[in-house]
Amino acid sequence: MQKPTIPKGTRDFLPLEMAKRNYIFRTISDVFKLYGFEQIETPAMENLSTLLGKYGEEGDKLLFKILNSGDFLSKVTREELLSDTSIKLTNKISEKGLRYDLTVPFARFVVQHRNEISFPFKRYQIQPVWRADRPQKGRYREFFQCDADMVGSDSLLNEVELIQIINEVYSRFGIRVCIKMNNRKILSGIAEMIGEAGKITDITVAIDKLDKIGIEKVNEELSSKGISENAISLLQPVLQMKGSNFEKISVLRNLLADSPTGLKGIEEVEFILKKADALSLCSELEVDLTLARGLNYYTGAIFEVKALDVEIGSISGGGRYDNLTGIFGLPDISGVGISFGADRIFDVLNQLDLYPKELTESTKVLFVNFGENETDYCLPIIQQLRKEGISSELYPENAKMKKQMGYADNKKIPYVIIAGENEIKENKVTLKHMGSGKQQLLSREELLKILR
Amino acid sequence: MQKPTIPKGTRDFLPLEMAKRNYIFRTISDVFKLYGFEQIETPAMENLSTLLGKYGEEGDKLLFKILNSGDFLSKVTREELLSDTSIKLTNKISEKGLRYDLTVPFARFVVQHRNEISFPFKRYQIQPVWRADRPQKGRYREFFQCDADMVGSDSLLNEVELIQIINEVYSRFGIRVCIKMNNRKILSGIAEMIGEAGKITDITVAIDKLDKIGIEKVNEELSSKGISENAISLLQPVLQMKGSNFEKISVLRNLLADSPTGLKGIEEVEFILKKADALSLCSELEVDLTLARGLNYYTGAIFEVKALDVEIGSISGGGRYDNLTGIFGLPDISGVGISFGADRIFDVLNQLDLYPKELTESTKVLFVNFGENETDYCLPIIQQLRKEGISSELYPENAKMKKQMGYADNKKIPYVIIAGENEIKENKVTLKHMGSGKQQLLSREELLKILR
Repeated sequence: MQKPTIPKGTRDFLPLEMAKRNYIFRTISDVFKLYGFEQIETPAMENLSTLLGKYGEEGDKLLFKILNSGDFLSKVTREELLSDTSIKLTNKISEKGLRYDLTVPFARFVVQHRNEISFPFKRYQIQPVWRADRPQKGRYREFFQCDADMVGSDSLLNEVELIQIINEVYSRFGIRVCIKMNNRKILSGIAEMIGEAGKITDITVAIDKLDKIGIEKVNEELSSKGISENAISLLQPVLQMKGSNFEKISVLRNLLADSPTGLKGIEEVEFILKKADALSLCSELEVDLTLARGLNYYTGAIFEVKALDVEIGSISGGGRYDNLTGIFGLPDISGVGISFGADRIFDVLNQLDLYPKELTESTKVLFVNFGENETDYCLPIIQQLRKEGISSELYPENAKMKKQMGYADNKKIPYVIIAGENEIKENKVTLKHMGSGKQQLLSREELLKILR
Repeated sequence: MQKPTIPKGTRDFLPLEMAKRNYIFRTISDVFKLYGFEQIETPAMENLSTLLGKYGEEGDKLLFKILNSGDFLSKVTREELLSDTSIKLTNKISEKGLRYDLTVPFARFVVQHRNEISFPFKRYQIQPVWRADRPQKGRYREFFQCDADMVGSDSLLNEVELIQIINEVYSRFGIRVCIKMNNRKILSGIAEMIGEAGKITDITVAIDKLDKIGIEKVNEELSSKGISENAISLLQPVLQMKGSNFEKISVLRNLLADSPTGLKGIEEVEFILKKADALSLCSELEVDLTLARGLNYYTGAIFEVKALDVEIGSISGGGRYDNLTGIFGLPDISGVGISFGADRIFDVLNQLDLYPKELTESTKVLFVNFGENETDYCLPIIQQLRKEGISSELYPENAKMKKQMGYADNKKIPYVIIAGENEIKENKVTLKHMGSGKQQLLSREELLKILR
């Protein structure tokens, strides 16, 4: 019989990986809670009408779609069956899809529950999402997102708070990061300024790649999208802008002097920078005009976080969106949010060896099993240890000593208790410390004192 | 525009519900860990080849199936399209399904990772499962299971440990329960004894309903399944057996004297009862010969837990299975496990009002926002509180006082801090206790002392 497998791009998590992942989720959610965010969850399945059209044409293709239950063909005519393309037929045999991100379901949640929640609403959410992307190293078809969003407030103090949260999360992890920041309004201003306001999307998509493909390729791409040579040359000072954040701002203020939108963006960035400066955070904060992020729904601040000591893509990202709930019929709710990529953080912590030493929450004490009499002697002691919160196990069978000790080794159990005939006679137990090999004969009280 | 909805049978969880659910999951997993179980997770999607045929014909229908990505029709001929039934076509356009329970994916996991784990392997798993059941009160299409299983050991001490775990979990919840226990071998012995060994499944399915439909209906069902009148009359003493656990055992020992399998089952039950008795657990433990549980894979002990103070179905169940991994090509791995039904526990705790009072992990302190100067004064104080682990928020906008206080009320924030011109002059803050309405003018140090 063939060894069973799981779908490509998905993963099983073994105990050690779970302990690491739980550490990541716990650290992030602790910080979210410290800032007053409350947890929600949404179902894995959403109606396709909620999901379709929200992630672009490519996104629609990458949605995992659920086949309708029962006799799904009964609603399809012979003619449709023969003439429809796969995409067209999909709409007739599938009504539900798996969550693709946490943002769109959250927008749906806010609209659906608007009378049960009070605004401004600060929520966090840690759940898996599914994308039918081609699996590759570090990219999975099922992965976890950890999002915090605040909706129902325009205040830029929310942006400041997100920066504080990013700073706090990564300083708890011990990961040195640079928080990159830009503003969609500045990007719009730039597009106006170079006379290509209508091509803002093409421009942002192209300059977003500057880091990866270099300036020449970016210019080629801009040209291929029909951006004029004049516009491209006007754009060069922006792409090559150097200096401190405040230097960049003062250059921009001149460049965008005629764009009210652009100036508004500059003002926003300046406000956020000043507040963040006053809090003297340990993370770097850098205005990066090439930061665009693909997502069209951003309307103000845009954030992205890079780890300084590891070569890896961004490990967090987010921004301000002014009308996400509008697509579900509730306009004028502004929101701003940040998403932590658990899988990349997992890799960074592994590469930098930053996991806490005492991570696994496994058994503390294993009782060796010598047979029924000894078991009867041990069970009440084990019960007592557990009452004290000390995780304990009795090896379930009277197996060879070597096997039982091997079990303790494999599970990294630090203490083993041996209670054979002699110990029972004296109403004691022998405690073996697996690290040092040291053994002690102890009364129950002494045992408790040591293990507590 | 229509209000958006979610698929029927699925749920959103709002912050208060999340807090309650997290309390349930935390309590259960704390106990699992105390007994040395380690957490794993498996993907939401499994290959259909892993899932199909494991839950009976009915179960196959209730699996949520995922449409293949891309041009799924390209592998189907015109002829097949027109001639296939929905079920037949499903196999050609769908290769993956959503997890239906945690047990089968765990069996698959054990076989797939047999060289990475050490046996006996104690794992726990808390994840959602999906079933295309008709939604009804208390039954959902997405719900969470909390399972602990121990595989790779025949020892009955594992059964005893599961009883301890059940007892510990429900005593932590404050829910009084009766743990019902039976043994598949006894059921087999009974089927042999009444001369209907071949109809064990029909018999167990019928007597499993005794509680719900009464003895007459059970007898009718047995008869309709072709069980002889003689056999049914021989079965009556079993169905109506009364008395203490040990009385039942001694009656059974006579009844099943000629069935080695039956006697083995009795021996197992007796061993478990004696060990459990010695531990003087607070939960009732009752041998219930009508307990069968539908699942065919049980081979030894069968457990089910009923809440004593609420009318509701079983809130936990489990048992011994001797060959679950056999279906994936790894025979002779015995396992025993228990599953906690989070949704029913949620309802029981609600009905009995047993949730801890201080459940919500929301904000402790809200700072009222009076404008930019006051904000600049407050931000470093908030930062300091957070450094001390005190969850704090600044209301993001300079809104009317009433609105800000309403926000604190809605979110059940116990403390509000007011720092206006006067407080700033004195380098102090006013702390308002929302419960009593009491206000105090405090220095930062005094504030910290109170909130810590």
